[in-house]
Amino acid sequence: MARLPDLPTPALVLSLEVLERNLATMATTRPGATLRPHVKAHKCTGIARRQVEVGHRSFTCATPREVVGMARAGVGKDLLLANESVDPHRLAAMAAAERETGIMVTVAVDSTMTVDLAAAAGLRHVLIDVNVGLPRCGCAPEDARSLAQRALAAGLTVRGVMGYEGHLMTVPEDDKPRKVKASMSSLVEAFDSLIDVAGEECRIISAGGTGTYHAFDPDDPVLGRVNEVQAGSYALMDSSYGAQPLPFEQALYVVGTVISTASRDSGSWAVIDVGLKSLGMDHGNPHIDDAVVWFCSDEHTTFSMNDGSLPSIGDRVAVQPAHIDPTIALHADIHVVPRWGEAVTEVWPVDLRHW
Amino acid sequence: MARLPDLPTPALVLSLEVLERNLATMATTRPGATLRPHVKAHKCTGIARRQVEVGHRSFTCATPREVVGMARAGVGKDLLLANESVDPHRLAAMAAAERETGIMVTVAVDSTMTVDLAAAAGLRHVLIDVNVGLPRCGCAPEDARSLAQRALAAGLTVRGVMGYEGHLMTVPEDDKPRKVKASMSSLVEAFDSLIDVAGEECRIISAGGTGTYHAFDPDDPVLGRVNEVQAGSYALMDSSYGAQPLPFEQALYVVGTVISTASRDSGSWAVIDVGLKSLGMDHGNPHIDDAVVWFCSDEHTTFSMNDGSLPSIGDRVAVQPAHIDPTIALHADIHVVPRWGEAVTEVWPVDLRHW
Repeated sequence: MARLPDLPTPALVLSLEVLERNLATMATTRPGATLRPHVKAHKCTGIARRQVEVGHRSFTCATPREVVGMARAGVGKDLLLANESVDPHRLAAMAAAERETGIMVTVAVDSTMTVDLAAAAGLRHVLIDVNVGLPRCGCAPEDARSLAQRALAAGLTVRGVMGYEGHLMTVPEDDKPRKVKASMSSLVEAFDSLIDVAGEECRIISAGGTGTYHAFDPDDPVLGRVNEVQAGSYALMDSSYGAQPLPFEQALYVVGTVISTASRDSGSWAVIDVGLKSLGMDHGNPHIDDAVVWFCSDEHTTFSMNDGSLPSIGDRVAVQPAHIDPTIALHADIHVVPRWGEAVTEVWPVDLRHW
Repeated sequence: MARLPDLPTPALVLSLEVLERNLATMATTRPGATLRPHVKAHKCTGIARRQVEVGHRSFTCATPREVVGMARAGVGKDLLLANESVDPHRLAAMAAAERETGIMVTVAVDSTMTVDLAAAAGLRHVLIDVNVGLPRCGCAPEDARSLAQRALAAGLTVRGVMGYEGHLMTVPEDDKPRKVKASMSSLVEAFDSLIDVAGEECRIISAGGTGTYHAFDPDDPVLGRVNEVQAGSYALMDSSYGAQPLPFEQALYVVGTVISTASRDSGSWAVIDVGLKSLGMDHGNPHIDDAVVWFCSDEHTTFSMNDGSLPSIGDRVAVQPAHIDPTIALHADIHVVPRWGEAVTEVWPVDLRHW
């Protein structure tokens, strides 16, 4: 973390070299349209543009704000809101963005109300969101056909189905293919149940994430039918995904500055200006190399070095977030370095924040 | 949560009535300068102005941004950065804000470096930050005197001492006075150790928070010497402090909208558009009245009602955050209603966000 003399902290710092390596690695396994990168992980059109450069044109979004922001920035050709919205204003804003930019907008629907609201707002394309085991959104697989019929009757194009097996992202690797296949069976069956009514434009079976992107064996009669994967975290990574055997490296750290140190009879510790307001904490404490994190407070993390050494006040410390998505949501900007150890050359706004 | 027809969600919604009741309750116990409200909890000058209206003029801040934002907005007369900064630009920005607005700025110092940087930046007032048991910032009590001497030699005014007994905020009530007193003994001793060198302007012994504000018995020879309390969460509350026997009510909720429901053989649940990106999660899951929260994802919370009923898609749901401070840090605005059940009348920006 040398050469960051003027960086105000806490700050997100991204290695462009590592980002590009992660993007290239993923694009080798899932090139072009076989990956629909999820922008919710980074909320940053600067990063999405790099994903376009390696060949992806279709993107996944979690909020209307992400869809509208991507469209207005002219990034991608095919944007999916992989989430339900029942906000007429935001649905209309996405429809307007599609009309005015020519970038295709598709929204997930899982109920008659979400179908009707999408049609009323002037949206044109939907995916039927099918529940594949995670108790969250998605219709029951047996309801997919009737929802598709309702969408078609309302003048919407049904582009296919999606399902998110979020409950399987961190299952042990030896169990993962079997469990993902069982989950995807219901998604593929739902697709097959509606294809006769939805017609030629119905082609998408969309699922997956960073924890399962490699589970979609193209030769498997079920898994091979999933034709796009919605991974997002792979671009930046975090300590949770980093604990899995994945070929991606940490590309982004929250960099802090040591503001206080203590050497007492009761122990030695250092304090940095990175805390609960700069770190997503739902996956637990962040990680610092060669150190033990004691605890995080609003604006502080207390830690000690494994070798008993004490950092100096003013030292920079790189903190690996436990969960990248909510970490980025706390920051306004990403500071870009060409390589670790080099100076910041660009600042990319986290321009897709909020809703 | 009626009468919120046009509220885009997730959204922070504040009851002005409850806020004012909380502020009045606290001002009865700790009026005027005996409370130094902590703005880190709300990061909102709109709320700080209400704290001025009930008689407080001195405020506690956790970041330079909060200090500068309060000064530039003309809120308060006496702002304390109860935290260490080693950023010369931000220290200078606080000094400039003091010069240009006439609002007094004091910063905490706990090392020779923080003393020297404060003086070099043109700051004029410091508190000696003393460690009182929480392994975070603060000098050893026995070092307070020498730090004060260094500050005085650098031309700084030493206004007193502060110490934060954050490790005692949630100890059982019957044990709290004894433990707070033991912690404050070292702070009072540190004060007494430097008073002969620091002179007449050295008068402040600052400590405490929402969990201990009532522990400072004015008749106790130690606790009674703490002359200002740095409580912040009391204004808004959260489920963590709500579990303690405190006389404050929840004044702010994250309001969500039901976007999906499911009634299956495996169970029934509803999903709202409130998740990890709108909730501070370090204290665990949020609370929903009469419901069980199953889990939170980036943009969702899945829950079920205790009585087995299922909300309707489009229903509003009030979510009580487990930790108010990092929750607010995720939002741009606070929507104000005069009373629960009434329409939004004002939007107050969270204008002290970031650093």
